[in-house]
Amino acid sequence: MPFAPFDWIDDEARRRAAAGLVRTLRPRPAESGLLDLASNDYLGLTRHPEVTAAAAEAALRWGAGATGSRLVTGSTTLHAELERELADFCGFEAALVLSSGYAANLAALTALTGPESLIVSDAGNHASIVDGCRLSRAATSVVPHADPDAVRKALHTHGGRALAVTDSVFSVDGDAAPLGALADACRGGGAALLVDDAHGLGVLGEGGRGALGAAGLAGGEDIVATLTLSKSLGSQGGAILGPARVVDHLVNAARTFIFDTGLAPAAAGAALGSLRLLRREPERAGRARAVAAELYDRLSAAGLTAVRPDAAVVSVRAPSAQAAVRWAADCRSAGLAVGCFRPPSVPDGISRLRLTARADLTRDEIMAAVATIVATAPSG
Amino acid sequence: MPFAPFDWIDDEARRRAAAGLVRTLRPRPAESGLLDLASNDYLGLTRHPEVTAAAAEAALRWGAGATGSRLVTGSTTLHAELERELADFCGFEAALVLSSGYAANLAALTALTGPESLIVSDAGNHASIVDGCRLSRAATSVVPHADPDAVRKALHTHGGRALAVTDSVFSVDGDAAPLGALADACRGGGAALLVDDAHGLGVLGEGGRGALGAAGLAGGEDIVATLTLSKSLGSQGGAILGPARVVDHLVNAARTFIFDTGLAPAAAGAALGSLRLLRREPERAGRARAVAAELYDRLSAAGLTAVRPDAAVVSVRAPSAQAAVRWAADCRSAGLAVGCFRPPSVPDGISRLRLTARADLTRDEIMAAVATIVATAPSG
Ligand SMILES: Cc1ncc(COP(=O)(O)O)c(C=O)c1O
Ligand SMILES: Cc1ncc(COP(=O)(O)O)c(C=O)c1O
Repeated sequence: MPFAPFDWIDDEARRRAAAGLVRTLRPRPAESGLLDLASNDYLGLTRHPEVTAAAAEAALRWGAGATGSRLVTGSTTLHAELERELADFCGFEAALVLSSGYAANLAALTALTGPESLIVSDAGNHASIVDGCRLSRAATSVVPHADPDAVRKALHTHGGRALAVTDSVFSVDGDAAPLGALADACRGGGAALLVDDAHGLGVLGEGGRGALGAAGLAGGEDIVATLTLSKSLGSQGGAILGPARVVDHLVNAARTFIFDTGLAPAAAGAALGSLRLLRREPERAGRARAVAAELYDRLSAAGLTAVRPDAAVVSVRAPSAQAAVRWAADCRSAGLAVGCFRPPSVPDGISRLRLTARADLTRDEIMAAVATIVATAPSG
Repeated sequence: MPFAPFDWIDDEARRRAAAGLVRTLRPRPAESGLLDLASNDYLGLTRHPEVTAAAAEAALRWGAGATGSRLVTGSTTLHAELERELADFCGFEAALVLSSGYAANLAALTALTGPESLIVSDAGNHASIVDGCRLSRAATSVVPHADPDAVRKALHTHGGRALAVTDSVFSVDGDAAPLGALADACRGGGAALLVDDAHGLGVLGEGGRGALGAAGLAGGEDIVATLTLSKSLGSQGGAILGPARVVDHLVNAARTFIFDTGLAPAAAGAALGSLRLLRREPERAGRARAVAAELYDRLSAAGLTAVRPDAAVVSVRAPSAQAAVRWAADCRSAGLAVGCFRPPSVPDGISRLRLTARADLTRDEIMAAVATIVATAPSG
């Protein structure tokens, strides 16, 4: 063949290699022996026997898949139960479960806006929000990070339908959005507020009810939340919470809901199992926050530059992408798994280690993790 | 509040109600008692004891969730095993597993094109392909359904990077794409060919190896396939198959892969279980096709207008959206679940019943289904 349509891929691979930015998959065994400060299993529930048993039972009872889209054969009473309990737990009128948090953000952003709408989006928002803005074909105004005044100004330039969107806790730095001030800005500008509570559910608010509850915004008629079932709830899937009329509208209009197979019963069952466990053991939420605060305090005391955590994510700066990669590799050699974020996964171009504070980390594990991170830290 | 940001939703709900196009979720119990010709469980595997046991075992062994994105903590050796066996079964060099078939199409379309590319897309393609085209920001030329000449002409208008995309089996009418002629058109125009084999895997090709294998295109250096694990394999998830360099590129560039939590172990385990079962019982594929042909023959003989099935989907025309809804409801009252497709889910505006031919339907079940559909058919 004279002209191979994928030859350009080799050029891009060479460019990535030259920049030291090649990513490769590193499959892990069932028992890795590493101390895990890299996953998003904030409450330590993904391997909890009650949660894995709920997943297994759901697969055996309902089948391995949902078998169709939610509007054809893919809605079971298990999905309905999960939706009712999620809405109730977080203080919203209604909920809709999707196959991922990513799909939930795409669904909410596309179905709640349109070409004539304005979306005001925080510069630090997650990739799924950015993609949702693009897919919506709404005019999108990207505003500086965590800046309610900028949101207010952007809304004042627009007369029609408008929506502001933000992560509740930003996934890279672990800082919280100023939700109260953002809600005020939205109300002043006639806009709805969409909050992605992926990293707030299970960690923030009373008993882990999330950032919206903590801010007194849950259940507001102009408030919509997206969730993922894949972090604190230790499963897979996403959800959208809001007024019943909003959820009814999504069922009729959201393409990533309508044309996608329903969430597998095992994932729905596991998320429901985690939710019930969290209701019984609400102290897990506060414990995750306390572990994060302790990690931050100890790493800062050792001279590292970290961001004071608002939830369960602790971000530690690295001097360069190469240094971050080496640092994470050195931690791994010493038995500690940490996240390593570098371009293009970081909006600001700054590389960092990303640590997650699990509620089930012991004092000894925290001390060992801090010792390893400090001992392997790059100089400068 | 003087100005409620979601009031427009009520207007849309009223418009939908007036047009008779309101959709509502109807959760099903674990044992519905209905004869199922509505799900996409083509091989009858979603409740197969081996498959549900594989799901349950994976949850118990690996945990309820993947705990992070595939590049952080979300890749297990179970994911790697599934990828190797999927690639091998379908005859491709490499495979990448994602959380849904929808995400797989978004990933392939966005990462394999760019603002300077041309995408040539069949007018009947699935919503996830349409959304992938939108998200890619490539110029998209929508060509008439199943028309390789139109693809050839569209490619000739463009000098740079190009990709044609098609469903292998169209989800609404169950007709197959002319893959050989499309591949010729692509090769003549220097374009890659992306084929969504969601409805071909498990049904078409030797032992269900899919439409690409059947067309002699599997493993081609200019060919990429997307799959879903949620139909013939009875689970949840999606995959992209292609040359190793393409898969490596997707790992580095596909946002709906990089920024999404990995597929839950239970879903990966179930898909692997189904794949192994299909290898041992390759006759399931031919049986699904034979059931579809029999449904078509009997419904046509009874005077109904159906599309001759190329795989396991049989589409039967209804005179109107209202008639289709009533027809499906009458079938349900008689104990038979069938799909009902109507605007805006049908690209051509024609409403129809959609029947799926499961490999495990018995002769008696086929006869009963046909009798019910014929007895409840609208006149005209
Ligand atoms: C803020 C945020 N939103 C959405 C998502 C997507 O959720 P999921 O992985 O369940 O698709 C993630 C992470 O993956 C996230 O960090
Ligand atoms: C042709 C086609 N592609 C992709 C998808 C999406 O796959 P999934 O439901 O696994 O996300 C579907 C159906 O849902 C489909 O019919």
